[in-house]
Amino acid sequence: METTCLAGWTRGSRPDHLFRRFVFDSYAQTRRFLDEMQAVCEACGVTPQNVNFGTTYVNVTISAEGPELSPADWEAARRIDALLRPSSEAV
Amino acid sequence: METTCLAGWTRGSRPDHLFRRFVFDSYAQTRRFLDEMQAVCEACGVTPQNVNFGTTYVNVTISAEGPELSPADWEAARRIDALLRPSSEAV
Repeated sequence: METTCLAGWTRGSRPDHLFRRFVFDSYAQTRRFLDEMQAVCEACGVTPQNVNFGTTYVNVTISAEGPELSPADWEAARRIDALLRPSSEAV
Repeated sequence: METTCLAGWTRGSRPDHLFRRFVFDSYAQTRRFLDEMQAVCEACGVTPQNVNFGTTYVNVTISAEGPELSPADWEAARRIDALLRPSSEAV
């Protein structure tokens, strides 16, 4: 089964990548999300190509190492989404 | 004593801020640096305004919340520098 899109994420090219911005109410929530996201990436064997965060936001880019995103990349994106709590808002 | 510069960091304005890029040999080193940097920021009572990291780099921006950088901001920058190990390279 080939996945070509995932709700909430923007897919781009050159290289093939997924991007999503997550917004939080507090730095504590941002920090917790970052920690949990790292654990997910390690579990999936994916190292985030680019993460940009500030006090209350995290921008995540998962990029393909080869010509296109791998099943592990898609799995990491899905698991990162699953980290969201009702107190956080993904935009 | 007023500090106006800190070796290795670039100072910018609008808002007053310090920026430095750190480069590492591996994701493990990058990850350790991120964890230690967060601990430093918490100890200094500073929340990083912007951090951008990838597999082997971390770009750190410490921005003033008021008109100019506070002593805590400078202290955080100094302590972040002190985290550097011989195996990492700051550019």
